[in-house]
Amino acid sequence: MKLQVAIDRVSLDYAIELANKLDGIVDVIELGTSLVKDYGLITIKQKLPSLKKSQLLLDLKTIDEGVYEFDKGFETGADILTVMGGASVDTLEKVYKQTEELGKTMLIDLMEINDEKTSLINKFPKAIYGIHHANDSQNDFNAVDTVMEFHKNYVNIQKISIAGGIDLTVAQQLASQGIADYIIVGGSIIKADDPIKAAKKFMEVIR
Amino acid sequence: MKLQVAIDRVSLDYAIELANKLDGIVDVIELGTSLVKDYGLITIKQKLPSLKKSQLLLDLKTIDEGVYEFDKGFETGADILTVMGGASVDTLEKVYKQTEELGKTMLIDLMEINDEKTSLINKFPKAIYGIHHANDSQNDFNAVDTVMEFHKNYVNIQKISIAGGIDLTVAQQLASQGIADYIIVGGSIIKADDPIKAAKKFMEVIR
Repeated sequence: MKLQVAIDRVSLDYAIELANKLDGIVDVIELGTSLVKDYGLITIKQKLPSLKKSQLLLDLKTIDEGVYEFDKGFETGADILTVMGGASVDTLEKVYKQTEELGKTMLIDLMEINDEKTSLINKFPKAIYGIHHANDSQNDFNAVDTVMEFHKNYVNIQKISIAGGIDLTVAQQLASQGIADYIIVGGSIIKADDPIKAAKKFMEVIR
Repeated sequence: MKLQVAIDRVSLDYAIELANKLDGIVDVIELGTSLVKDYGLITIKQKLPSLKKSQLLLDLKTIDEGVYEFDKGFETGADILTVMGGASVDTLEKVYKQTEELGKTMLIDLMEINDEKTSLINKFPKAIYGIHHANDSQNDFNAVDTVMEFHKNYVNIQKISIAGGIDLTVAQQLASQGIADYIIVGGSIIKADDPIKAAKKFMEVIR
């Protein structure tokens, strides 16, 4: 199981400082939607040095104009880009084709979509399917149970990621469960007193 | 009926030049999602002078972290911000409250959401409900029929906007129909040889 660290709602300078420090420690470094919308891809590209070991994910949350946004996102240096499961099937088909042609990866963010829509878009074998509990949502969320149920419903889906309030205990449970390929951790690492130390702890418990 | 002109997928300098020229000619000037994601709100705020007569809409397409994104969007100078209908009900409730407290307007983008979800979020009386045919979608789309059907299904919804391939003929039909409060026009104005002249023509046919 891989660890993706989501950097969000901080200054771009601090995000880049963190990204450089986390490079090689965690598997995927995410620059979150807030950084994209606050600073823009042009500025991010200018300021962000290439990561040497970790992969870069830009959380574009594309929902329309897929090819345009993915062009810009990959130009910025991303290895992985996100598209909303709530986008039209046409959007998803176009960006999947584009992503495959470039040898990159797309993550489909399943936030707030129902089983009917999930079934409709369950046809992109190399995509990562991201189970995502909205930060804004006030419903309870059990990551381990949710992953198990998702896996039972969609046994053919190869790559699953899970995001939403994952702490060390849940990370360890998900690693033991052995279904999810990626966990996405934000606040528990970024808001820790020592984010690098916190990231290393997460890497330890999932290995 | 009001005209909203969507400026998208151009350089920010050109977008600002256009916005200044369109100020006072059209009702709402939209800086599209591509401008937000390419340039970022910080740069947009630095470069964009206040519009004197037209309203400014920033097409944030917020789907999570609603309060954070709306804070940033209103700080940038927007009168109207967009949130996806596909966002969680919690997100929509939070940004609606925030928007009302600031005396601003929120537009709920209904792209790709079904009747069940639309019914769930049919409870924000001052919001604009935006019928939106995805640019990426390859399905046919009849704006006039779609508005009529939407109005029949949701008679209580006060403010309706409609977007998706609206040309002069359709604009005139929508004005005669008298249901939609806003039409959103992009390419037919922005890609015209003379966008200002094109905008004026749209204003003529809808008045």
